Amino acid sequence: MNNRILAGTLRSWNIDQKVLLKGWVQKRRDLGGLIFIDLRDKSGLVQVVFNPSSKEALETAESVRSEFVVEIIGRVVKRDEATVNDTMETGSIEVVAEEITILNKAKNPPFQIQDETDVSEDLRLKYRYLDLRRRDLQNTFKLRHQTTQAVRNYLNEDGYLEMETPILTKSTPEGARDYLVPSRVHSGEFYALPQSPQLFKQLIMMSGFEKYYQIARCFRDEDLRADRQPEFTQIDIETSFMSSDDIMEMTEKMMQRVMKEVKNIDIQLPLQRMKYDEAMARFGSDKPDTRFAMELIHVSDILKDSSFKVFKGALESGGKVCLLNVKNEAANFSRKDIDKLTDFVKVYGAKGLAWLKVENGEVKGPIAKFLSDVEVAGIVDRANAADGDLLLFGADKTGVVYDSLGALRLKLGKELELIDEAKFNFLWVTDWPLFEYDEDAKRYFAAHHPFTMPAEEDLDKLSTDPGSVRAIAYDLVLNGYELGGGSLRIYKREQQDKMFNVLGFTKAEAEEQFGFLLDALEYGAPPHGGIALGLDRIVMLLAGRTNLRDTILFPKTASASDLLTDAPSEVSTDQLKELSINVLEKYTENREL
Amino acid sequence: MNNRILAGTLRSWNIDQKVLLKGWVQKRRDLGGLIFIDLRDKSGLVQVVFNPSSKEALETAESVRSEFVVEIIGRVVKRDEATVNDTMETGSIEVVAEEITILNKAKNPPFQIQDETDVSEDLRLKYRYLDLRRRDLQNTFKLRHQTTQAVRNYLNEDGYLEMETPILTKSTPEGARDYLVPSRVHSGEFYALPQSPQLFKQLIMMSGFEKYYQIARCFRDEDLRADRQPEFTQIDIETSFMSSDDIMEMTEKMMQRVMKEVKNIDIQLPLQRMKYDEAMARFGSDKPDTRFAMELIHVSDILKDSSFKVFKGALESGGKVCLLNVKNEAANFSRKDIDKLTDFVKVYGAKGLAWLKVENGEVKGPIAKFLSDVEVAGIVDRANAADGDLLLFGADKTGVVYDSLGALRLKLGKELELIDEAKFNFLWVTDWPLFEYDEDAKRYFAAHHPFTMPAEEDLDKLSTDPGSVRAIAYDLVLNGYELGGGSLRIYKREQQDKMFNVLGFTKAEAEEQFGFLLDALEYGAPPHGGIALGLDRIVMLLAGRTNLRDTILFPKTASASDLLTDAPSEVSTDQLKELSINVLEKYTENREL
Repeated sequence: MNNRILAGTLRSWNIDQKVLLKGWVQKRRDLGGLIFIDLRDKSGLVQVVFNPSSKEALETAESVRSEFVVEIIGRVVKRDEATVNDTMETGSIEVVAEEITILNKAKNPPFQIQDETDVSEDLRLKYRYLDLRRRDLQNTFKLRHQTTQAVRNYLNEDGYLEMETPILTKSTPEGARDYLVPSRVHSGEFYALPQSPQLFKQLIMMSGFEKYYQIARCFRDEDLRADRQPEFTQIDIETSFMSSDDIMEMTEKMMQRVMKEVKNIDIQLPLQRMKYDEAMARFGSDKPDTRFAMELIHVSDILKDSSFKVFKGALESGGKVCLLNVKNEAANFSRKDIDKLTDFVKVYGAKGLAWLKVENGEVKGPIAKFLSDVEVAGIVDRANAADGDLLLFGADKTGVVYDSLGALRLKLGKELELIDEAKFNFLWVTDWPLFEYDEDAKRYFAAHHPFTMPAEEDLDKLSTDPGSVRAIAYDLVLNGYELGGGSLRIYKREQQDKMFNVLGFTKAEAEEQFGFLLDALEYGAPPHGGIALGLDRIVMLLAGRTNLRDTILFPKTASASDLLTDAPSEVSTDQLKELSINVLEKYTENREL
Repeated sequence: MNNRILAGTLRSWNIDQKVLLKGWVQKRRDLGGLIFIDLRDKSGLVQVVFNPSSKEALETAESVRSEFVVEIIGRVVKRDEATVNDTMETGSIEVVAEEITILNKAKNPPFQIQDETDVSEDLRLKYRYLDLRRRDLQNTFKLRHQTTQAVRNYLNEDGYLEMETPILTKSTPEGARDYLVPSRVHSGEFYALPQSPQLFKQLIMMSGFEKYYQIARCFRDEDLRADRQPEFTQIDIETSFMSSDDIMEMTEKMMQRVMKEVKNIDIQLPLQRMKYDEAMARFGSDKPDTRFAMELIHVSDILKDSSFKVFKGALESGGKVCLLNVKNEAANFSRKDIDKLTDFVKVYGAKGLAWLKVENGEVKGPIAKFLSDVEVAGIVDRANAADGDLLLFGADKTGVVYDSLGALRLKLGKELELIDEAKFNFLWVTDWPLFEYDEDAKRYFAAHHPFTMPAEEDLDKLSTDPGSVRAIAYDLVLNGYELGGGSLRIYKREQQDKMFNVLGFTKAEAEEQFGFLLDALEYGAPPHGGIALGLDRIVMLLAGRTNLRDTILFPKTASASDLLTDAPSEVSTDQLKELSINVLEKYTENREL
């Protein structure tokens, strides 16, 4: 027998066929002189029975254990009605074994290969090759493959060329922290791993290619949070001669294709668009989860003459008062519960959490006595508050109100199960600020990156009032997660010079770091723009997962370690010598101890 | 007008259409009150005429220069018979401009954007974005895109999953030199950039995925030759449960698909196979160019009793005497010409180059007098030598004879134009030696890598006579270039232990460097194997180019510099401090000077 058949593909139409199977022993059970093996391969599982009519096979089967790799020849038979297993795709048949060969043995694995697992993530990462044998991870990486191919199919058909940009590049300190690579040939000099192919994709436009994409590996040496990895993958796209509307339209058609091919879900185009200011005001977030309402309700105007010192103070210092109306939950939130919510918003800089309940036609709560009847009536009316509603207030600087109520909204949305988890709500957030002001550094930073095009109507404010300048930039949001974003880019030298000037670069500094780009702008750079979407996060959301590490084949921990291979690790002094570098003494000292 | 049309797509069927074009000014000519512009975009060129009927456009057109980016509205017209240009695809029509807008200006480029260029490569690399505008480079990267997609299409249809392996990995000093990346979080420790995804793709098999591929970036910090780059791309494939024949068959079907989709050439399968020993003996090369004959002719047996001391010495020390018969070239090679060939073979370790000419039925040459009539007759007969033939001898250790005559064969094949450049000759070279002995290190090294499976019949010689053990390994050769190779891998722990033992690893050393793989072999590793093919080189051969740098978008020089961005470069001391490393003092000292 030569032609292996995949275990999980066997069905009733294979009955009476003699088959060759290869795979892993998922489970072995001995039952009344018979041995049952669930055989697993990449396609799924099938039950194999060993009986005394094939004595040698039965004997060998006795010695197999979980995760042994075996080759089995047998015949497909119909199962007895009583033993049909509807939870298995192959559950109507089984294979009666005639021969079995053990291809490789397996020690008892440190944890069982099954989907429901409560094993520590560290152990799973150390034995990643066992963890990855679980069906749900197998499926996640199939989905990742499908997603990538759907993206490629769309872009290929639309005339984009897939192109590769360098991994060994130049360090540009503006932005996140670079991973550095010492050069052996040029002693004392370093390459940097790219945080994104941003500059190269712009150079590709200046090279006349017009339509570029890459499924690109990117690197950031940042302190990691749950949804960050030192290396991640983005769908990186750049085009020439297209408007921001063109680019958004192309992107949403691509996502439509992905949703159809991967999830068989039709999404309606055009996707909803919302300006950054509106997103912040309505949802307290620049990446609103629009699967549920409970928007921020603005009541500053109603409270403009309030004597309540918390509201008064916030408004007098130029801040805002907003509230969330938690419908029908007044009775379910004790004072203690609300204290917990107060602790929660404090993380976002709020000093407290004022609240009111509407009960039996009355508005109650510790702050009620500080509010006038007119103010209460105004709030009730604006909030559309009815009996049983709980009103939670934010009163502070605008940023604090948005951040805290935005986060509180999400928390309550999840806890109160207001979110339809089957929904995929895409949203464009547009008209972003071009700059962010950093109070510590006392200077403006590029909100996106220094190559983003300012809105034409704001050009005259670039030097005079940078904080008010909008960018021609757009972020794509899905269910409250930022999938990625893009912008039109500056393509004229004078404008790029001005931009660096606002960012506090001297001419020499700009030239030193970005001279090659500035030069390129002077040799016929076309109008261009693009977008980059996080592939890992898209896969996470499409696979219905919550941990980004489950979407990356060999992920790193929060301290950027690979627990499987034990990277990073020490290297030989010879290696360092060749690179003309030393490890600082205190670390080599520690090492000797 | 909103819908831009691509310049190079305009044909006679567009006549009378009003069109919107965007692109670069390739050339401007003024002629009798008219201005002609060749407008270039990613699709090609079209001629645009400005005449006095659109006065404003004519005036603007006067100010444009080469590489200006412009937008033109005009009408497509038939060209006069006299001005039809058959060398241009759009040569039967031209566009009469009505409006022109300058989108961006361009300084006078440092070299002209044209296919035939004698500009220095350094200047082209510094202004890579200009160089890439040339039609032949544009076409090369289109071909690269097509090649990649053809590979993906084939593998996707065959059930392979595209998967991403880490770039930040563990340093494993066995093999070429690693690029290292200092870790900030784990002071004194380093990641390494992968020389190939070898270990990870084996772990993917141990994870039960069975069919993996990746268009993978790889890194080697080696001193560069013309056809090497510090980062390069390989088509990386691994499968479980397949034989070496299966893998070769899959690979050649994939290459058949590539040749069809990219070059529209049908290649016949199965591809020719040749054992390593045969390739060396017949062509003096482990990657023979089979587009022409002129094989090595073995004459050691004929000369076994020769008194000529060069031949005698070679044979007595266990070496060989071989020759090339350069047909009909005796008259064209003067003694001086042959001296040059002698210098050439000396590079390969040969001490000289004995030769004979057959002229007027006589065998002549400085060594003729040292050979007996029987020997001469034997040589003439074996070499099938006829009047006008030149015989070039190699007599030395076998390796030197093969290397020098193999190289000489290639040189003469090119210079004498014996090679049909239109041919694509694929060839499998199989049955490689498993080990190479290093005289300096006095130990065996893995010829391929330490995970290669030995041939079953040679297993018992693994400890006793490693030099004679063959590997289950195969290389794919095209026109004398190695496209890549693969092997079955060791999948049993005991065998891998033995392998490391032969390679001189202590148990502790093997455990320290490859412990994770050794562990994985004990938890149900399936039989597996794969292949890796160099994408850059495939593209080079398919595009008919000779310089690997022309196939890489932003390549590095022989000293691993990126002349465009000026990488590598110095970084700030703050950056180094965060990474807990120092540049060795002598280099920082030099820097201050």
